[in-house]
Amino acid sequence: MDGTVPAGLLASVRERRPLVHHITNSVTINDCANITICTGAAPVMAEAPEEVAEMVAAAGALVLNIGTLSAVQVEAMLIAGRRANELGIPVVVDPVGAGATTFRTGTVQRLLEALDVAVLKGNAGEIGVLAGTGGSVRGVDSGGVAGDPVETARECARVTGTVVAMTGEVDIVVDGKRAYLVRNGDPAMDRLSGTGCMAASMVGAFAAVADDYAVSSAAALAAFGRAGERAAMAGARGPYSFRTALFDELAGLEPRDLAEHARIEEL
Amino acid sequence: MDGTVPAGLLASVRERRPLVHHITNSVTINDCANITICTGAAPVMAEAPEEVAEMVAAAGALVLNIGTLSAVQVEAMLIAGRRANELGIPVVVDPVGAGATTFRTGTVQRLLEALDVAVLKGNAGEIGVLAGTGGSVRGVDSGGVAGDPVETARECARVTGTVVAMTGEVDIVVDGKRAYLVRNGDPAMDRLSGTGCMAASMVGAFAAVADDYAVSSAAALAAFGRAGERAAMAGARGPYSFRTALFDELAGLEPRDLAEHARIEEL
Amino acid sequence: MDGTVPAGLLASVRERRPLVHHITNSVTINDCANITICTGAAPVMAEAPEEVAEMVAAAGALVLNIGTLSAVQVEAMLIAGRRANELGIPVVVDPVGAGATTFRTGTVQRLLEALDVAVLKGNAGEIGVLAGTGGSVRGVDSGGVAGDPVETARECARVTGTVVAMTGEVDIVVDGKRAYLVRNGDPAMDRLSGTGCMAASMVGAFAAVADDYAVSSAAALAAFGRAGERAAMAGARGPYSFRTALFDELAGLEPRDLAEHARIEEL
Repeated sequence: MDGTVPAGLLASVRERRPLVHHITNSVTINDCANITICTGAAPVMAEAPEEVAEMVAAAGALVLNIGTLSAVQVEAMLIAGRRANELGIPVVVDPVGAGATTFRTGTVQRLLEALDVAVLKGNAGEIGVLAGTGGSVRGVDSGGVAGDPVETARECARVTGTVVAMTGEVDIVVDGKRAYLVRNGDPAMDRLSGTGCMAASMVGAFAAVADDYAVSSAAALAAFGRAGERAAMAGARGPYSFRTALFDELAGLEPRDLAEHARIEEL
Repeated sequence: MDGTVPAGLLASVRERRPLVHHITNSVTINDCANITICTGAAPVMAEAPEEVAEMVAAAGALVLNIGTLSAVQVEAMLIAGRRANELGIPVVVDPVGAGATTFRTGTVQRLLEALDVAVLKGNAGEIGVLAGTGGSVRGVDSGGVAGDPVETARECARVTGTVVAMTGEVDIVVDGKRAYLVRNGDPAMDRLSGTGCMAASMVGAFAAVADDYAVSSAAALAAFGRAGERAAMAGARGPYSFRTALFDELAGLEPRDLAEHARIEEL
Repeated sequence: MDGTVPAGLLASVRERRPLVHHITNSVTINDCANITICTGAAPVMAEAPEEVAEMVAAAGALVLNIGTLSAVQVEAMLIAGRRANELGIPVVVDPVGAGATTFRTGTVQRLLEALDVAVLKGNAGEIGVLAGTGGSVRGVDSGGVAGDPVETARECARVTGTVVAMTGEVDIVVDGKRAYLVRNGDPAMDRLSGTGCMAASMVGAFAAVADDYAVSSAAALAAFGRAGERAAMAGARGPYSFRTALFDELAGLEPRDLAEHARIEEL
């Protein structure tokens, strides 16, 4: 994919500043709010069943993250998701820890059955579990998949009917037909809590200004990865300095830099 | 207002180290705890209905922030607020996202009816909504007010019977009679999640050592703004570095620096 | 205690990367996740009663922190704790604010009665309250103990049947027989929110690779304190820069540095 595509989407996010409604976990909720702002969009976190249908109606995208899910949160996700579907607002699901417990796996399956999900963004283990082809998840960390990652992602897309964005050293984005490999990023991003959640927020922000969610997901992951590359070049003293630099670099990321350095390959 | 007034209040906070009891949102709860410490006060976050009446009795101020409210949290706010009222402990309300959903607007109105609120601290849109004169709120962001901001704040103070602290490029603090404009601050503070919530924590910490809540609110906002000015001078590489500097500068803010640089104008 | 002992345990944590299951407060939950990663272990936060028994079965340690407890969270703590006990997984309890409210004190006593707790890690005030010998707690801050801190810790260990890790300027770790003083650390650690919670996460990570929980707790506190000493040497501009440096230094802490600089004295 030509770098001008992600660059154009990044410019659109900043111009239109879409509201990204999150129902998310309490571990990385602040990271998600700040990464959304640094991307150029506007975050709102709201999960009371009393208000989510009204809140999502003003949003450009809805991000559902099950990192610290509870029964009442699942109820709110279903209410918000149904309303988003009615209004044509894209829904992004981050199946944090699917495969680690029956409650998590079952909740994701319930969301996938009840809602028209635009993008399912997970790590390799989570996607493998949801594809039904075998994946290993320990806590919220991926233990990898049984077979070829691209085929696993394709199978997950086939089974779920969504765009699948599988993050890893190389990110893989597939829908029923196409497959993109995103080679941006830095290994230091794996040594932080929350980078997976942040990636989902960015996928939401980009989906809010796009029609093609496979393209917008690949673009979002390239932008996040490019910010990570620039943060690594800035010379952090450790993972927490790197984290600060990651937010700073994303906020300052120029579309023309992304146009030049995005590395998205279509298979 | 002479700069020695906010300087004296800052010195009092540090000397008396009041406990500031928060019932607040999960997005910025850590920011609020750390900003309270950097101001010189002691934060405690507790929201179980079983314990809030007992906890607030030890506090110098109570801060109620509806950023991620739930029905049970509202119940806890009412219990804690009533007990604070009985004990003469000032209650600060931050109406995050009032106007964005009926649940948020209704909750703030319920708090205002049930409790004797000392200070209502919101952005322009939220205050306009609560004044009933028209305000625009998108998610948790202000879309501005219909008419003159100072008149909007005055009307809100008249309707609610509270001190109103309306944050923005220039902060406006009014009660039934007086109006203060606070011109400290830096535009970078708007590019972070949580600065509004942090401002409410500081308003709480300053109220805990004051009798005149209009004066203490203006002083708190001047101190926060001055820390932002110093953070900007420190030369941050981006918004997250700026955030680190904001906490650092507030912790190191000398009362004499604030005495010299506070810019609080009485209208 | 010879410095090679904590150094060996730190190396074990990094080699085995145990999963540390937290049921914890919303204020410092992100800090706990990141400090666990920087220590070399893998955090997972899960508190739905529906899933905690299944999640804890994959963990090397369970950390229960009552900083923002709720009735449903206590239920989850009991379910997870009982399962951990069945499986021989060490349970660490952080009694945040015990003594400040009846609900907190009562919850800790309930956990101690229902569960076989491996380590009780608290500040002096909390431990004094739980020892029944007198302790003062204001919000979540220690106001100190009535008598000698070592005797207070010993009495708490006797009453509760746990290893007691009492943090402070000098950390005290006792069981029924032994007592260790840990002299690592820096005063700047007290000017941050969450260092007590982070210490509990580290105590959990070290317990996951040890059989002797008094030794592993002293080792964890020495490692955390050593990271703080190195952070202070790095020359932070204020408490938030120090915080960044603390995470960075812990992530980069070499076992041989800890072997040389750990200051653990057996009484």
